[in-house]
Amino acid sequence: MLENIRLEISYDGTGFHGWQVQPDKRGGKIKEVRTIQGEVEKAVKRIFHLNVRIVYSGRTDKGVHARAQTANFKVDTHIPLSSIKKALNTYLPEDIRVRKVKFASLDFHSRFSAKSKLYRYVILNRKEPDVFLRNYSWQVPDKLDVRMMEKAAALLKGKKDFSSFTRKASSYKSCVRKVKNISVKKSGRFVYIDIESEGFLWGMARNMVSLIVSAGLNRIDINGVSRIIRGKNRSLLGRPAPAAGLFLKKVFY
Amino acid sequence: MLENIRLEISYDGTGFHGWQVQPDKRGGKIKEVRTIQGEVEKAVKRIFHLNVRIVYSGRTDKGVHARAQTANFKVDTHIPLSSIKKALNTYLPEDIRVRKVKFASLDFHSRFSAKSKLYRYVILNRKEPDVFLRNYSWQVPDKLDVRMMEKAAALLKGKKDFSSFTRKASSYKSCVRKVKNISVKKSGRFVYIDIESEGFLWGMARNMVSLIVSAGLNRIDINGVSRIIRGKNRSLLGRPAPAAGLFLKKVFY
Repeated sequence: MLENIRLEISYDGTGFHGWQVQPDKRGGKIKEVRTIQGEVEKAVKRIFHLNVRIVYSGRTDKGVHARAQTANFKVDTHIPLSSIKKALNTYLPEDIRVRKVKFASLDFHSRFSAKSKLYRYVILNRKEPDVFLRNYSWQVPDKLDVRMMEKAAALLKGKKDFSSFTRKASSYKSCVRKVKNISVKKSGRFVYIDIESEGFLWGMARNMVSLIVSAGLNRIDINGVSRIIRGKNRSLLGRPAPAAGLFLKKVFY
Repeated sequence: MLENIRLEISYDGTGFHGWQVQPDKRGGKIKEVRTIQGEVEKAVKRIFHLNVRIVYSGRTDKGVHARAQTANFKVDTHIPLSSIKKALNTYLPEDIRVRKVKFASLDFHSRFSAKSKLYRYVILNRKEPDVFLRNYSWQVPDKLDVRMMEKAAALLKGKKDFSSFTRKASSYKSCVRKVKNISVKKSGRFVYIDIESEGFLWGMARNMVSLIVSAGLNRIDINGVSRIIRGKNRSLLGRPAPAAGLFLKKVFY
């Protein structure tokens, strides 16, 4: 029977060149790089003995993590779900874990059916770096003004043109996206920025964090933040926040 | 002026073959492996332009971490401490960080002057593995009985012969060590085992944790624990707890 298998996958992005299968063309030579999609497809192939392209909610960049990425694939099978989960985790490398396996209706599509996605950005705000968090946070040594960060974040909420937050604005038909929620929370030495949006442009989450942190460091005031948003031009922004701090936390359907 | 420089170093042991510089002799070929000592000595050499052997409180095994390893070396220098710290962290790879640099008296010796060492062992006690903690904890899926663990730990406290807790008992003149404190703490899904001892035999901390966890899983009762201690024979124990969960937390002088 044809089944649409839905996966919830967590991965440590440190050792991957992002989600998507892509050839590495450096120096003219084409070399397969290690990607999450590639590893999942290899594991699926070992179980079902066929090549399947995995559909997923959206790619994550090199070094970006996921607590719960959603993916699905269709296969003709009678293998019980629990066995599929066990087999996938046996064949997958230990930096990818399948947390849940479900049957979805045949029209479920991880990308097109998604209503919104929630990213969490983790900042470690202390003078001394923590060697154990170097791949899982952005270590900001100067004291962050969380109230300023909240004010900047509030300006980013809602439906608007986010051209200033992507280097690839020209590749989209429209850069209007709806940011449903955005919050800044301090917890001890950590500052968390949670962003839930109906869609993300390429680089959008990390560029938003970059701007919010600039506000938190008082390098830019609220008028400046507002000007950058209205400017609709990526060159107004500094460098994006590092990939290491970004976690895809949940995809809503 | 000859100075005795004392370092407090933290490192993520995941990418290292332990602390100590040693040749890798697999397949007859001798190959330098990546060690913490080797990296620190290379960084010191770049600053002072001379070969120094770093003295340290004690080696840590492959995959074992340190929040605060203590090391020292003697050098004739007028460079201020803050510059030494900065230069070391510039030259060291990012999985080793120097947290403190101090002048010590000339007779200070990281190993011989140490009064005791505190190790923390981190257990993640939940059914589903956490991909972000795979290198920093022992993931035990079955429910641990913390009271049983406390009882087993209590039997390990004090001055006694720990021959049952090392594979190298015959290489020591005496396997008597004094465990000053040992505690088991539950915090959410984590269980921490803290062991402070005046000395540790090779493998002792991980073998003690192995026994305590066996008690927590009710695979052995308190009489069994007591029998193993009195048995003075490593073969009575199961496998040592994985290196990933072990952190050298502090060295006391």
